[in-house]
Amino acid sequence: MDALIITIGDEILSGATVDTNAAYIAKKLISIGVDVTKRCSVGDDPDDIEREIRDGLDKFDVVVTTGGLGPTDDDMTKPVACRVFNTHLVEHRETLEALKKLYKQLGLTMSDAARGMAMQPKDAILLSNPLGTAPGILFDRDGKVFCSIAGVPSEMRAIVDHGLVPYLRKKGTGRVILFKNISTFGIPESILAAKLKKSGYTPKNVRLAFLPSYAGVLIRLRAEGADASEVERNLDQNFKEIYEVVGENVFSIDNRNLVDHVTDLLREKKVTVSTAESCTGGLIAKTLTDVPGSSEYFVQGVITYSNDAKIKCLDVQAETLEEFGAVSEQTCRQMAEGMCQLAETDYAISSTGIAGPSGGTEEKPVGLVYIGLADKDGVVVERCSFSGDRDVIRTKTTYTALNMLRIKLLEK
Amino acid sequence: MDALIITIGDEILSGATVDTNAAYIAKKLISIGVDVTKRCSVGDDPDDIEREIRDGLDKFDVVVTTGGLGPTDDDMTKPVACRVFNTHLVEHRETLEALKKLYKQLGLTMSDAARGMAMQPKDAILLSNPLGTAPGILFDRDGKVFCSIAGVPSEMRAIVDHGLVPYLRKKGTGRVILFKNISTFGIPESILAAKLKKSGYTPKNVRLAFLPSYAGVLIRLRAEGADASEVERNLDQNFKEIYEVVGENVFSIDNRNLVDHVTDLLREKKVTVSTAESCTGGLIAKTLTDVPGSSEYFVQGVITYSNDAKIKCLDVQAETLEEFGAVSEQTCRQMAEGMCQLAETDYAISSTGIAGPSGGTEEKPVGLVYIGLADKDGVVVERCSFSGDRDVIRTKTTYTALNMLRIKLLEK
Repeated sequence: MDALIITIGDEILSGATVDTNAAYIAKKLISIGVDVTKRCSVGDDPDDIEREIRDGLDKFDVVVTTGGLGPTDDDMTKPVACRVFNTHLVEHRETLEALKKLYKQLGLTMSDAARGMAMQPKDAILLSNPLGTAPGILFDRDGKVFCSIAGVPSEMRAIVDHGLVPYLRKKGTGRVILFKNISTFGIPESILAAKLKKSGYTPKNVRLAFLPSYAGVLIRLRAEGADASEVERNLDQNFKEIYEVVGENVFSIDNRNLVDHVTDLLREKKVTVSTAESCTGGLIAKTLTDVPGSSEYFVQGVITYSNDAKIKCLDVQAETLEEFGAVSEQTCRQMAEGMCQLAETDYAISSTGIAGPSGGTEEKPVGLVYIGLADKDGVVVERCSFSGDRDVIRTKTTYTALNMLRIKLLEK
Repeated sequence: MDALIITIGDEILSGATVDTNAAYIAKKLISIGVDVTKRCSVGDDPDDIEREIRDGLDKFDVVVTTGGLGPTDDDMTKPVACRVFNTHLVEHRETLEALKKLYKQLGLTMSDAARGMAMQPKDAILLSNPLGTAPGILFDRDGKVFCSIAGVPSEMRAIVDHGLVPYLRKKGTGRVILFKNISTFGIPESILAAKLKKSGYTPKNVRLAFLPSYAGVLIRLRAEGADASEVERNLDQNFKEIYEVVGENVFSIDNRNLVDHVTDLLREKKVTVSTAESCTGGLIAKTLTDVPGSSEYFVQGVITYSNDAKIKCLDVQAETLEEFGAVSEQTCRQMAEGMCQLAETDYAISSTGIAGPSGGTEEKPVGLVYIGLADKDGVVVERCSFSGDRDVIRTKTTYTALNMLRIKLLEK
């Protein structure tokens, strides 16, 4: 069973909105053995939408669209679906009741546009939307499944998880597609590939992809077939061969990202951490607290942008700032030490650097960042030279800091 | 002139990576009058890639691909481009020199895979890549432009900005596509649309889109034509009619987002701000310091996760925490007051709430957030009930806090 995902909306096409829906739907379909072999985006033009849907139903077993189901005039998907499936809109009582209830709650009078939300294609299977008013619309005809889903990400996720995926699973896809993820940090994609090649490894019955990001390079293995245990054997065999070659750079083999991995370590070891940030402006603390339950290990953070704040909050010495500057190994060290004492945590991370785009000098160029890690034994400071724009430099600083913490936690 | 953008890579198709490149390229092409009417993604399968490129060159004036130009075996775009344009790879001296220099800098021996990066299609126009080793590949044949660009976002942006866009601009596109953005906060999409409809407004020679996000609903007008001044007149006329109806919710008409708008206000008014965060864990400070030069207005932030930190850092009274809890109007108020005094800033923002997914009670459910804003006249605290997951609640809190600050700054 293969699938095409169509995302609809001028905002997607023009680049005003980044499409995250297609990635989510693809993941979910692949997890039940529906292979997504193409994705495309079209604008709010009914003819373009109709052509893509008809073309998709010709070539693919499953066609999923998101977007264009809203209350405004640029939302075109419902009339197009009616044309494709030779039907028309009728008022759907449950949707209307849900709308009335919502408007009552909000204390608003229902507009005609809103009332139009209750009109649904006759003979369609409607997938209920627990988080909004537009249900998913599904047609299952001549062995082809068409499904149209709202574009609001939370609503889309609910309809995919509780409507589309169970429907397709029940129908049966006859195939298994499995992945294995090998997460590495601190080694570039090209060196990883060269190491593997040099070792004589070649992929056997798997597809291999290298996925670089600021949080490391993910090596992803994909295998498929009709027999689940054979697919798993293929994955395991390939995984073992790869791990033997690049194992020392691997931090996770269970698809946990660096943040989850580090925060799990903090929890397991029952230790606490605090942060003293300058150039990252709160991003390290934000990242450490992205994880639910982070109050178990995260106690406190400060963002000391001004020299004054560094002195008052963190006991950085005025002479240090004067002699070496705010962006220096010495200041970074005192920030981490001061934070450790202030928050009384087992570990404290500090960052100070030049995130740019301005503020760089020949001696201290944009991208120069010091990262400190304090514990009761002392402070380690790493000097880093990052390339990229402000956002990239701040992100790389954050992941490098987390990796320093990871290594320290594993040492103990 | 119309365009198709093809993003290549299993990681995009499977949803492991969210495609942000296509949005960037679309924006840039549209800004020079090249209309992007379709986008699609295919995996690292050479036949799929070839079919999409050939199909695209049939139907569109411009076809741009990203991805699949790296050093590893899953990178297929160059051989496919050779097949399509009936040519072969030859060693490109400049690219080879750049590679040698890079490897020397890194102190590494150049692998065969890396050396393969210097092989480029004969007769292609190469667009230099200042941030990496894979140049852009451009063919201009029979009135059609094909361009293949690396998938690493920073490299992609550099090649688009300094290679592809100047090339197409020089060629001339014969059309103008212009946008006008009306940024609103605090009013849902459906109410905006209903208000406009009720007023009798209908779009005239423009396409209208409502783009909801946690930072507000953007009303985007798009107009196009051969004559720039006529296109502008159309936009202005529509804009005036819309502004008359929904003006009170508009915070920007020059496409600045809420963050840029607020930070510009802070700079203009030469005032300073600090942050005392609990549930947002640094996100408000991170957002305020996303902007270059933020040290002009941002002095200091603290993230007080534990009660202890709230007491020690911000002078929140132990009795307040005991009587009302950490998530309360009273605690939020004392956090903002304490922060204003600690950092000696003109304004201080505080946040305390339950971001979830756990930790909620009947009295204080997940999504309950208090946001405080202190200045020398006192503290305002807003009680908010946000829906969504942890990430959404933290994001909504941040934008609502920034909007409170915006309104306060405009009052003065």
